[in-house]
Amino acid sequence: MKKRIAVLPGDGIGKEVTKGAIEVLQAVGERFGHQFYFQYGLIGGEAIDAVGSPLPNETIEMCKQSDAVLLGAVGGPKWEHQPAHLRPERGLLKIRKELNLYANLRPTSYYPSLAESSPLRKEVIEGVDMVMVRELTGGLYFGKPSKRTRKNGEDEVVDTLYYKRAEMERVIKLAFQLAEKRKGKVTSVDKANVLESSRMWREVAESVAKEYSDVELEHMLVDNAAMQMIKNPKRFDVVVTENMFGDILSDEASVLTGSLGMLPSASLSEAGPYLYEPIHGSAPDIEGKNTANPLAMILSAAMMLRLSFGMHEEAEAVEQAVNQVLDAGYRTKDIMTFGKKDASTKEMVEEVKATL
Amino acid sequence: MKKRIAVLPGDGIGKEVTKGAIEVLQAVGERFGHQFYFQYGLIGGEAIDAVGSPLPNETIEMCKQSDAVLLGAVGGPKWEHQPAHLRPERGLLKIRKELNLYANLRPTSYYPSLAESSPLRKEVIEGVDMVMVRELTGGLYFGKPSKRTRKNGEDEVVDTLYYKRAEMERVIKLAFQLAEKRKGKVTSVDKANVLESSRMWREVAESVAKEYSDVELEHMLVDNAAMQMIKNPKRFDVVVTENMFGDILSDEASVLTGSLGMLPSASLSEAGPYLYEPIHGSAPDIEGKNTANPLAMILSAAMMLRLSFGMHEEAEAVEQAVNQVLDAGYRTKDIMTFGKKDASTKEMVEEVKATL
Ligand SMILES: CC(C)[C@H](C(=O)O)[C@@H](O)C(=O)O
Ligand SMILES: CC(C)[C@H](C(=O)O)[C@@H](O)C(=O)O
Repeated sequence: MKKRIAVLPGDGIGKEVTKGAIEVLQAVGERFGHQFYFQYGLIGGEAIDAVGSPLPNETIEMCKQSDAVLLGAVGGPKWEHQPAHLRPERGLLKIRKELNLYANLRPTSYYPSLAESSPLRKEVIEGVDMVMVRELTGGLYFGKPSKRTRKNGEDEVVDTLYYKRAEMERVIKLAFQLAEKRKGKVTSVDKANVLESSRMWREVAESVAKEYSDVELEHMLVDNAAMQMIKNPKRFDVVVTENMFGDILSDEASVLTGSLGMLPSASLSEAGPYLYEPIHGSAPDIEGKNTANPLAMILSAAMMLRLSFGMHEEAEAVEQAVNQVLDAGYRTKDIMTFGKKDASTKEMVEEVKATL
Repeated sequence: MKKRIAVLPGDGIGKEVTKGAIEVLQAVGERFGHQFYFQYGLIGGEAIDAVGSPLPNETIEMCKQSDAVLLGAVGGPKWEHQPAHLRPERGLLKIRKELNLYANLRPTSYYPSLAESSPLRKEVIEGVDMVMVRELTGGLYFGKPSKRTRKNGEDEVVDTLYYKRAEMERVIKLAFQLAEKRKGKVTSVDKANVLESSRMWREVAESVAKEYSDVELEHMLVDNAAMQMIKNPKRFDVVVTENMFGDILSDEASVLTGSLGMLPSASLSEAGPYLYEPIHGSAPDIEGKNTANPLAMILSAAMMLRLSFGMHEEAEAVEQAVNQVLDAGYRTKDIMTFGKKDASTKEMVEEVKATL
């Protein structure tokens, strides 16, 4: 197959890990006889520096014409004191909106070889296997008004949590479709005892559930979900929630298994292209040191092979190679524990390629 | 001293644990020569059943005329399918608003004797000692509009995150005042890379910080805070945040040390009375079984002695009694571990009284 991949390395370690993932994809192409065409675009701080915008139109156009998008990471202290519209994160929010990436998927699973890097006890995380599905283009992130006003001499401010029914429906449906192929359980997280939007969310979840009789639906309040995630993460299969709750809970989930530097994500739209990125940020403190963990980016590329290109065997080959490299004891700094083999970003990539 | 205490036992185990705390307060009164007058009021499901409202006016009046309010817990499956205005939680939200309880304080600290009940590794939680300060009468909880509409044949919904500058200021100030008497550090949690309200929150925090030169201020994004809470909870001293973020993060924090059934809270207003309640809910599944842990309620009463009545010695006596009972090995079901002494709610209360 021939595939066009838009590559947006971004800032900080984004560049290093993206480079690694592309080498792995080239190796996959050679082994399985595919042709991947990589086109590079600017996003984030790099784009601000180069052309004065965190997401130039050329980048958007290029992404729209590609079969899938790979994103590294954006942001860094250099741009932290810029006005809001000139901050790297804006590029991220804008590409989500432009590509209509309404659902962010984050699988979290237990790696026996990494259990020691987790802050949780082994008994608690052993066997964890969940997917967080976060609504990504609505809610407080994009609702209007979002502004300050002065009334009777006092500053006040408002942000708006806004959803259309159809926006809730499509992401909840996706969660049910995923659950059908997994353990058959959807946990829908809301704050229905306080928010009107959550009461509607709950109703939509109930009505979607009727179409999926083989999937069990449970509702959970967001505060309780924040507790259960730590107390008993094994109880979850697919968790679906709105944008802001999803931002918080998926970051909480990402540290459970001690493998933050290993976690990929996929952001889906109705018509494609989809976007793939590691969960970790741009980590400016270790930029250019050849110590970043490239596995989350490599596993994001594997998700792309599977979800965007339908290349199941290829995706599995990459995932297996990653597992074998871990089993062989190779570790970047973030997941290093006593007795293992210290590996640089490049060495880790080489090992994965060699194992492929 | 003479003090009038409004007692709202509420639903589920609320009744049992409140009864225990009152017995302990009576013992304190005898030992230290104080007179506590207890007046009982209805709230929650019980109030709905009795008079058709989750917070009758008589309860509000009684609370306003008291020196402090003790609340058990509200809610239960019986009222779960009622319309929103007839749900127990409404009573809770309303009393916060009526008494102007703008700041909820939740101390979380490490109990060596309970370390085994925590899902986290001992090294991670050893020495944790933080206070969450949550804004309690603003934000998404009370902002208008909060409603559905139909536009072009489609349902849409909106909730509103609204704050006045003064509402941010007073709760952030309180956090700094607390930090002055503690480890001298305030972590202000927001989502300034997305929300306008958070950008204003951050500015207010910066300007309050100028008045407290001996306190260090750090800003943290809410998603990162959800991670740090698990990865490195020891780094926190006082954490301050808006209502919804506080709801989620304080519940997350409450499970860290394995002592959910032990955690008290205080809700403060500008002019008093303050309200004290345990963090745990009404736990309808164990209602009336004499197995609920009364310590969170007893420790809430201790907070009342200290914060509302200035009775420092008395508060310490209660807290020490609780510690001694734990050291002696007594445990209710929720904190039971191998080799300890199984105690009922009543036995636990008796032990605390005897130790006093
Ligand atoms: C950078 C920020 C705007 C973004 C978000 O909140 O969505 C990030 O935290 C994420 O989760 O991808
Ligand atoms: C019951 C509910 C409305 C309440 C809240 O969200 O404030 C509870 O979760 C709490 O934290 O006291």
